[in-house]
Amino acid sequence: MNKKAIVLFSGGLDSTTCLVYALEQGFSCYALSFVYGQKHHVEVEQAGKIAGQYGVKEHKILSLPLDEIRGSSLTDKNLAVRDYQASDKIPDTYVPARNTIFLSFALGWGEVLGAYDIFLGANHLDYSGYPDCRPEYLHAFEKLATLATKTGVEQDQRFKIHTPLLSLSKAEIIRKGLHLGIDYSQTISCYRADINGRACGSCDSCVYRKKGFTEAGVTDPTIYA
Amino acid sequence: MNKKAIVLFSGGLDSTTCLVYALEQGFSCYALSFVYGQKHHVEVEQAGKIAGQYGVKEHKILSLPLDEIRGSSLTDKNLAVRDYQASDKIPDTYVPARNTIFLSFALGWGEVLGAYDIFLGANHLDYSGYPDCRPEYLHAFEKLATLATKTGVEQDQRFKIHTPLLSLSKAEIIRKGLHLGIDYSQTISCYRADINGRACGSCDSCVYRKKGFTEAGVTDPTIYA
Repeated sequence: MNKKAIVLFSGGLDSTTCLVYALEQGFSCYALSFVYGQKHHVEVEQAGKIAGQYGVKEHKILSLPLDEIRGSSLTDKNLAVRDYQASDKIPDTYVPARNTIFLSFALGWGEVLGAYDIFLGANHLDYSGYPDCRPEYLHAFEKLATLATKTGVEQDQRFKIHTPLLSLSKAEIIRKGLHLGIDYSQTISCYRADINGRACGSCDSCVYRKKGFTEAGVTDPTIYA
Repeated sequence: MNKKAIVLFSGGLDSTTCLVYALEQGFSCYALSFVYGQKHHVEVEQAGKIAGQYGVKEHKILSLPLDEIRGSSLTDKNLAVRDYQASDKIPDTYVPARNTIFLSFALGWGEVLGAYDIFLGANHLDYSGYPDCRPEYLHAFEKLATLATKTGVEQDQRFKIHTPLLSLSKAEIIRKGLHLGIDYSQTISCYRADINGRACGSCDSCVYRKKGFTEAGVTDPTIYA
């Protein structure tokens, strides 16, 4: 029987690549998505379609009230998602504690399923500088995961956080995904995607994605509004 | 202006003691409770009453779908909460990743509020052996918290996880709380509390609580069904 893995899966370019990579590595994949008050929740609908096509074992969609905490232009109705601006500051699309919350749910579900491998499409180049995508953060979470759980104590079962995209540029991720046969026109990365999933082309996420296709030397299949 | 603190607050004996202690230490307290599919969700209603009496700055109640993950008799309708049984195993009232999930939300809200002190009523004696109440786990979360956040990176702002009850026996917690003027008849610890908040007297939580009052040499004010 294949080893089970939880894959955090938004339906975007990175997490789709991560999912297909995990499948290709032979893991039996349980995809986990969140409706967390993000304005671009159309991504989750798309995630469902992609998960279905790839035949994941289960796709769980959980609703989390991150919008009740606010603090991000992705969730706060009074704060517009802006066009990309080059800056050494972390942009206001940062969602406080998002990856910690998402990974915590992956940990809980993983423990119940007996899935001790958790995949996350975080990457540390061509990204917005979010603190919870950094290697040192991810190592700290991996350490925490084993300490946090019953299986960690009673069975000395260690959790592993897999981040196969961590040190790849966006262009490298795209090349990897194309090699795996991914149709990126299906994936939604845009923070301002419309209800049909069409991308704005100018938010942080669109800019990094677009640059990736250019640098990879392939046609950008993204459907823009 | 007083320093702000987030207090994880279930309305039980431990977290009420923790809240009143934090107030007494001069913190401006923001109480955070969760409706997470627990069968004894009456505790959250009671938490609201207690938070109101003590004049916390805000009491936020968030709904989290931990019951969709299952894995615990506290949340799984097909699994009864049993009477206390002495055992060196972690009982099935353990909820996978619960404290990690709760602390992650505290972290997110804390970052938005500028509250870098997080109080948790975890204790490590007279408890059920839950892994996410152990000192090594809590230290690991504290380390993670600073790595996870924008304020940790840009302002080098460190989060502190306060667990003032960690090394106290239940009797010592009760004595501390009585000294602080707490009316424990208002608090609900029972995992099988009925809709009026009356305790069963025989679940894990009731047994530890009852023993605490006996050892503290005070009358148990708990309202039993």
